[in-house]
Amino acid sequence: MPGSTGCSLKLRETVLNRKNGETKVRSSDPVSVHDEIKAIIKKEDRFLITTHVRPDGDSLASVLVFAGLLDAFRKSCRICIDDGVPRKYDFLPGIERVKSFDDLPDSSGIGTAVVLDASGLERTGRIGDRIPETARIVNIDHHEGNSRFGEVNCILTGSSSTAEIVYDLYRRCDLPLTPEVARLVYTGIVCDTGCFRFANTGAQTLETAAEMVRAGADPGKIIHDLQNRHSAHTLQALGHALTRIRFFLDDAVVGMHLTCQDLKQFPEADTEGFVNYLRMIEGPSVQFFINEVQPGRHRVSLRSHEKDVNQIAGRLGGGGHARAAGCDITGNLEQVQDRILGCLSAVFKAGRAD
Amino acid sequence: MPGSTGCSLKLRETVLNRKNGETKVRSSDPVSVHDEIKAIIKKEDRFLITTHVRPDGDSLASVLVFAGLLDAFRKSCRICIDDGVPRKYDFLPGIERVKSFDDLPDSSGIGTAVVLDASGLERTGRIGDRIPETARIVNIDHHEGNSRFGEVNCILTGSSSTAEIVYDLYRRCDLPLTPEVARLVYTGIVCDTGCFRFANTGAQTLETAAEMVRAGADPGKIIHDLQNRHSAHTLQALGHALTRIRFFLDDAVVGMHLTCQDLKQFPEADTEGFVNYLRMIEGPSVQFFINEVQPGRHRVSLRSHEKDVNQIAGRLGGGGHARAAGCDITGNLEQVQDRILGCLSAVFKAGRAD
Repeated sequence: MPGSTGCSLKLRETVLNRKNGETKVRSSDPVSVHDEIKAIIKKEDRFLITTHVRPDGDSLASVLVFAGLLDAFRKSCRICIDDGVPRKYDFLPGIERVKSFDDLPDSSGIGTAVVLDASGLERTGRIGDRIPETARIVNIDHHEGNSRFGEVNCILTGSSSTAEIVYDLYRRCDLPLTPEVARLVYTGIVCDTGCFRFANTGAQTLETAAEMVRAGADPGKIIHDLQNRHSAHTLQALGHALTRIRFFLDDAVVGMHLTCQDLKQFPEADTEGFVNYLRMIEGPSVQFFINEVQPGRHRVSLRSHEKDVNQIAGRLGGGGHARAAGCDITGNLEQVQDRILGCLSAVFKAGRAD
Repeated sequence: MPGSTGCSLKLRETVLNRKNGETKVRSSDPVSVHDEIKAIIKKEDRFLITTHVRPDGDSLASVLVFAGLLDAFRKSCRICIDDGVPRKYDFLPGIERVKSFDDLPDSSGIGTAVVLDASGLERTGRIGDRIPETARIVNIDHHEGNSRFGEVNCILTGSSSTAEIVYDLYRRCDLPLTPEVARLVYTGIVCDTGCFRFANTGAQTLETAAEMVRAGADPGKIIHDLQNRHSAHTLQALGHALTRIRFFLDDAVVGMHLTCQDLKQFPEADTEGFVNYLRMIEGPSVQFFINEVQPGRHRVSLRSHEKDVNQIAGRLGGGGHARAAGCDITGNLEQVQDRILGCLSAVFKAGRAD
């Protein structure tokens, strides 16, 4: 879920000289940034396209639409993501073109690296280090906290997905909207808006989605491909977690957990998004899910309708967005719970003192 | 989930003389039906608005938008639904105007009954019997199998929700789109498309939704009001059901159940939609959920991505849509499962024989 909650376009362009650390920031309208990127596409021949580790539907869709754009200009490109593509996205048209870090033998010839949907260059994992010093970086993203690490930065925080920004560029290049591109952009929108459920869903989001459907995206099919391809283990693990729902701090907090033992029982379980089920419960203002990924090592997901869980995750060594954040904590279950509740208790007390 | 899967408009108008059972059917374009309804609104003064029993978000939104339309024409109307309004919809603007059967003292003065989102008059429960013989019935719906029981029937099976049909009428009456109407129509669309997840989501659906957002509907808030107001019991009961996932008939079928005992443990659980979680599992072509609502009496929900479960439910004394149907079966859990699997087995065999 991106941090942006509105739909107005805010755009800043940063021209950053990576070599001497000098940064010039200037405001500009989206058109001039798009023109700048178009100019780079025309003069450059050797591109690398990448995105953040553990890529999601929006980052993959963005990567593939940008690759299609380069194809149209007959430019050569490599597409590489540190840890490759999760199996569940193997239905995306063109996904076989995406390689993982181990399949990127030599990056020395790269002239321009296009980094999509990554709030910082470090979010690309090992790929960032492989970009030659001489290469230009084009940074296209919609995250509020983007560190503007590129030579050209196209950061539209009002856009609900990065795929929409890339599509806007594609359209401005007068390229025809193919059914494949429409499917990809629709997938990107659906993934980053929780299928139009998150607060970042605006009129523009729905209008672009409608345009994609008119161009050949099949909403029912895309949702089926995205949501109905789980292992039974995922649902069984979810069931186990839900039977352990507990309330804390006078019912202001609701939490649940899975242990290593559970996950051994359901090895194919994909626990991503489990915490969101707790959001459906009326009453608590904070939700947490503790997932013991290794014995004594817990991945904690925090959600809230109203509190700043980014701040809470920060105190616990993690981070994220105001309404969705996470952290890793070591210890036994009780210790982990105590640390989370200790932090939350302090935040609630501070809130009351305000 | 409505039965319609496409988005093209198919409209038939039936003029039915209820008194002598004579039925004249003629095709017409939507405009003439809308004109006919507009003419009735102008000449009639005493309206009753109703919808089906166990109303959902779309039927309630449709009822309230139609009431707003009558308000604009300064027409008096009563709004009555057999079993009233489920608590979870109490956030809808104007919902306090909706009465239940027991609050409809005398219906003799009613000149026109507007029946919304009901595929047959019997779907309104006891309300249908209360409509005076002398009253005119206006039937507005989007279900494929609508029995065209009205004097005027506006049945648009290509519309993803009835709220969109009522809004179209509202718009054709040159009434201003208020934030309240926008919120209602958006709610109707979201409820009947599973938040744009079902196959009935088309470009037109998304465009109308966008129009509603521009007019003041807040997607994030509406989804929050609709989805995040559950009792913990609902999630806990879901957890119990999911831990009981089982596969049958060479993994072609997946099912789960809840017993009376479970439901006693979680009295506030709302089990509506539990079966849909099983659709997320890749592989099985049919999903079922058995809910023991009373000792020995089971409500069975059937879903399928490809098989006609309406036909299967029909054999078991129930019905519904091709991809979503249900039935009631008495017996113990094993007997109920055996009956379902017996039917499914026969259908699978017949399928192979084709």
